[in-house]
Amino acid sequence: MRRSGNGGAAKKKKKRSASAASERRPRADGGMRIVVPLQGVVQGRGGLVLGSLIPCALFYFFQLYIKRNRASPPPPPGSPTAASAAAVSPIHRSLSRGLLAPRAALPAISARGASVRDDDSLYYAGLRRCAADPYHPVTNPSGIIQLGLAENYLSLDLVGRWMEEHAAEAASMAGGEDEDERELSIRGLAAYQPYDGILALKMALAGFMRQIMQGSVSFEPSQVVITSGATPAMEILSFCLADPGNAFLVPSPYYPGWDRDIKWRTGIELIPVPCRSTDNFNISITALEIAYNQAKKRGIKVRGVLISNPNNPTGSFVPKQTLHDLLEFAAEKNIHLISDEVFAGSTYGSGKFVSVAEVVDDLEDFDKGRVHIIYGLSKDLSLAGFRVGVIYSYNESIVTAAAKIARFSSVSTPTQRLLVAMLSDQKFISDYLKVNRERLRKMYHLFVDALDQVGIECYKSSGGFYCWADMSKFIRSYSEKGERKLWDRLLEEAKVNVTPGSSCHCIEPGWFRCCFTTLSEHDIPVLVQRLRTITDSHKPNH
Amino acid sequence: MRRSGNGGAAKKKKKRSASAASERRPRADGGMRIVVPLQGVVQGRGGLVLGSLIPCALFYFFQLYIKRNRASPPPPPGSPTAASAAAVSPIHRSLSRGLLAPRAALPAISARGASVRDDDSLYYAGLRRCAADPYHPVTNPSGIIQLGLAENYLSLDLVGRWMEEHAAEAASMAGGEDEDERELSIRGLAAYQPYDGILALKMALAGFMRQIMQGSVSFEPSQVVITSGATPAMEILSFCLADPGNAFLVPSPYYPGWDRDIKWRTGIELIPVPCRSTDNFNISITALEIAYNQAKKRGIKVRGVLISNPNNPTGSFVPKQTLHDLLEFAAEKNIHLISDEVFAGSTYGSGKFVSVAEVVDDLEDFDKGRVHIIYGLSKDLSLAGFRVGVIYSYNESIVTAAAKIARFSSVSTPTQRLLVAMLSDQKFISDYLKVNRERLRKMYHLFVDALDQVGIECYKSSGGFYCWADMSKFIRSYSEKGERKLWDRLLEEAKVNVTPGSSCHCIEPGWFRCCFTTLSEHDIPVLVQRLRTITDSHKPNH
Repeated sequence: MRRSGNGGAAKKKKKRSASAASERRPRADGGMRIVVPLQGVVQGRGGLVLGSLIPCALFYFFQLYIKRNRASPPPPPGSPTAASAAAVSPIHRSLSRGLLAPRAALPAISARGASVRDDDSLYYAGLRRCAADPYHPVTNPSGIIQLGLAENYLSLDLVGRWMEEHAAEAASMAGGEDEDERELSIRGLAAYQPYDGILALKMALAGFMRQIMQGSVSFEPSQVVITSGATPAMEILSFCLADPGNAFLVPSPYYPGWDRDIKWRTGIELIPVPCRSTDNFNISITALEIAYNQAKKRGIKVRGVLISNPNNPTGSFVPKQTLHDLLEFAAEKNIHLISDEVFAGSTYGSGKFVSVAEVVDDLEDFDKGRVHIIYGLSKDLSLAGFRVGVIYSYNESIVTAAAKIARFSSVSTPTQRLLVAMLSDQKFISDYLKVNRERLRKMYHLFVDALDQVGIECYKSSGGFYCWADMSKFIRSYSEKGERKLWDRLLEEAKVNVTPGSSCHCIEPGWFRCCFTTLSEHDIPVLVQRLRTITDSHKPNH
Repeated sequence: MRRSGNGGAAKKKKKRSASAASERRPRADGGMRIVVPLQGVVQGRGGLVLGSLIPCALFYFFQLYIKRNRASPPPPPGSPTAASAAAVSPIHRSLSRGLLAPRAALPAISARGASVRDDDSLYYAGLRRCAADPYHPVTNPSGIIQLGLAENYLSLDLVGRWMEEHAAEAASMAGGEDEDERELSIRGLAAYQPYDGILALKMALAGFMRQIMQGSVSFEPSQVVITSGATPAMEILSFCLADPGNAFLVPSPYYPGWDRDIKWRTGIELIPVPCRSTDNFNISITALEIAYNQAKKRGIKVRGVLISNPNNPTGSFVPKQTLHDLLEFAAEKNIHLISDEVFAGSTYGSGKFVSVAEVVDDLEDFDKGRVHIIYGLSKDLSLAGFRVGVIYSYNESIVTAAAKIARFSSVSTPTQRLLVAMLSDQKFISDYLKVNRERLRKMYHLFVDALDQVGIECYKSSGGFYCWADMSKFIRSYSEKGERKLWDRLLEEAKVNVTPGSSCHCIEPGWFRCCFTTLSEHDIPVLVQRLRTITDSHKPNH
C-alpha cells in the first residue's frame, strides 16, 4: 500500500516536472516540443514493445518528418525582433582596429523584454490617457476625470500636516551629541541595512496592521518582509510559492494589475474563476473545485488561491465563512492561500472586515504555513509614493527566501525611519484612520448617488476606493466589444476614465470599476453632467 | 548557399533552445537528464543505424536501468521540502464544514524559492559571520574585522553634516503658502509618481554622472531608469537583454554578487572568461572570442559581455583601447555590452577613468543601442542605505521595457526629493568628491603598506573600495581548497573577513578581495597584528 502510494507520488512528480519543463520552453524552441511527449517512454514504463520498438519506429518517422521540414524553419512565434536580428547579414571584423563598421540593426531586446514593452490593456491605456490630460477645475476644466486609479486624496491633508510638523525632526536623525554618536547615527542612515527592512519598521508595521484589524489579531515582526510597494511584495511572494508554468486560481473579477505583477517575470499562470452578479460576486468553492480539476486535467499544477479582501474591484468583504472554506479548500488540495489585504483599513461599510489572519488564529491544529498576506501603506495611509509593501507569511521557508529576494526591492532607510516616526505617533494614526473612514463613507455615498442620478447602479461595497458599477444597460451589444465601446465613449466623449470589467477578467460585460477617492465634492456635478451625455444618448436595452 | 545557411541557423536554434531547456530544468527533475543527451538523435541527424537502431538499444538499457532503480527514487537535490510534501498521505475533505483536518506537512516552497533560500557562498557566509560579531575597538575588540563589504565609511561625516544642515529643509517640502499649494505639494510627495523615477531626479543624476566622468561626456535624462539600487538595475537590465538559458560573457574575477543578482530570477547564465595575473588581469578579446565560440558550440546563445569599470575586485581601470575593442567585439557578434560603473567616482589612482559612454561618444556611425551602463549612489556618494540605482541605456526599447519593470523596484518619493536637493548642492557635491578621493587614496596606501608589512602583496589598483591581494604563498595546497582553508583561518583565527577569489570566479587560487573603506586609521595596527598570526605561521611555499 505504502509502496504503491510512493510510486504514485513519484509518477506525479515526474509528470509535474515534465509539464513545468514544457511550459518553460523558450518560445523559439523546436526540439523540446518533440522530446517532451516521449518522456513517459524514457521513464521506463512499458515493456519491450511499448518501451523500445514503438519509440524506435516513432523516432524513424520523426526523423523523416524533421528532415523534410528543416529546409524552411518556421519563424519563432512571438519574437519578431529575434527574427529580424537573425536576418541581419554577418558583420566581419574590420581589419583596422579602431574603425567600427556601421551596423544596420541592433542586438534584439529579449523576447520577454519585448513582451513587457508591448504589453498593454485598457486599464493602463486609460491611466496613460488621463495622465496626459488630467482634469482640473481651473487649469484644465476640459481634461479627463480620473476614476481609474485607486489612490486616495481625501485625507492627504492629514498626512501633509503631519509631514509639515514632524518630517523635519524625523529627517534630522543624522545628528548626535558627540562625534561617535553622530557617526553611528549617519551610519545607520546611509550604510547598508537589511534588504528586507529594519527591525524598527517591521515592529511598527506589525503594530499598525494589528490596529487596522482593530486589535482582533496580532502580527509577528519576524514574519514581516518589507518591500518597495505591495506590487513587488506580490511578485516576490509568488516567485517563492510557484514555479514557471504553475498556476494560481483567482476568483474574478480581480485587480487588473495582477496580470503584470505576477505574470510578467515569474511565469506563473493566473486562472480566473468567475464569480457572478446573480451570486453577488461571492467566491464559490464549487467553482474553485472545478477550476482546480480542469487545470489538473490540462497538466497544470495549481499552487495556490489568490484573493483580495476587501475585494478589488467589487469593494465587498470576504465573509468569515468563505475564508474558512477557502482555508479548508487550500488544506485539502495542499496548496497556498494568498490574501491581498491592502485596503483592510480603508473601510466604510456597516459590516466588519475580517482578515484571514483572524480566521487562521481561530483554528486549532491548522498548518498556518500555507497562508500569506500582502499588505502595504499605499492605500490605508495614502502613501503610494512612499513605496512600502509587506509580505506577511506564516511559513518560515517563504520568509527566508523572500527576505533574500528583497535585495531587489528595498525601501530607502530615510523613508523607513520617517515611517517609524509616523507609525509610532499613536494619536496621529488613530485620528487618521477614523477621519479617513468617515471621509471615505461620505464620498462613497455622494458618488453612488451621483451615478444613481444618471441611472447607473452600483454594487453595494464596503471597502476600498471604488464602486463596482453596472452599466450593462448602456452597452449596445452585450459583449466585451460592447463594453469596450462604452469605455471608449466614456473616455473620449465624456472624458471620464473608468476601468472596464474585462480588464478585471469579469465575464459579464458592462461592469466598470470607478474610483471615487481622487475626486472632491465640487467635481461631482461636473461628473454627473459628463456621464449624462452618454447615458441620455442610450435607450436602455434591458 | 543560402538554403544551407538557413538550415545551419535552424539547427543552431534547436540546439540552443534544447540546452536552454536543460539549463532550466527543475532540480527535482529526473527524466529530463536522460532525455536531453538524446536530443541530437531526435533532431534527425544520422541515418537508420545512428538514428534508430542505436537509440532503440539505448532506450532498452535505459529502461532496465531505470526500472531497477525505481524502487528507491533518489531524493531530489536541493528541495527537501518538496520531498517531504510529496511523502504526505492524501488528506480527504472533512465532511463537517468548518472542521479542518490537521496536516502533517505544508505545500512546498517553489523549487526556485528553495534554491534562493539555500543559496550561499563564502562571500555571503563571511558577511553574515561578521554582521553577527562585528569588531569595535571599544565595545567589541575581539569581534571580526570586516574587509568583505564594499561600503565606504571614510566620508560619511560629510554626508552626515549635509543631512544635519539640509535634510529638515528638504523634508518640509510638504508645506506651502496656501491650501492649494499645500495640497499640490503633499500630493507630489505621497501620491503615485512614475515608477522609474521623477524627472527632477533623472536630471540631477544625469548631471551628477557627467560630473563624475569629469565633464567628458553628457547623459540624457530620458535614457535614465531609476531603481532601488544598482542590484535591481542589473537584474532588470539583464531581464530585458536576455532570455532564460541565454548567457553573458563575464571577464573574471568578477563581483561575487552578480551570481545572485543576475542568475537567481532571470535564468541567465554567466560564463566567466578568466583573466590572468601574468596578464595583469587585463580583459583579453581572444579569450572572449574563444568563450563565445565554445558557448555557441554548446548551443548557448551569448547575448552580451558584462564588465565592471573600475573593475571589481581588482580595482583597475579598463583601458580605453580595451573598451574600444570590446565595442568592436560586441558589434561583430551583434551582442550587448554592459558596463557596471558604480565606482566611477571612487578613484584614487594616477590614471584617468574612462567611461564606456565616452568611448561610444567618440565613435561615429556606431550603433549605441547595444551599450548599457549601470550606475548608483551606494558607492560614489556612500549612500548604500538610500537604495538608488540607475540603468543608463542608449536603446529606446530597453529603456521602455526597463521603465515598466521598475514598478517592482521604485525609490520612495521623499528619498528622491532629498536626493534632488543633495545633488543640486553643487558646492557640497564637488567638495565631497574631492575630499572623498583624497581620503580613499590615503587609506589605500595605509592599507597596502599594512599588508606589505606582513608579506602580502597587492595588485596595483586605481578605484573602488578594495585591494586585490595575492596570498597564494600562504596557502598550503595551491587549489580552491587551499584558498578556502586560508579564508577560514583568516575568519576564525585572525578574525578578519575577506572575500576569496573563488567567490569572484578567479581561476588562480590565493587571491582575496580586501575592502579597506570601513576601517579607520586606528584599526590598521590591530589588523596587522591579526594578519601576522596567520602569515607568521606559514613558511612561504614559493
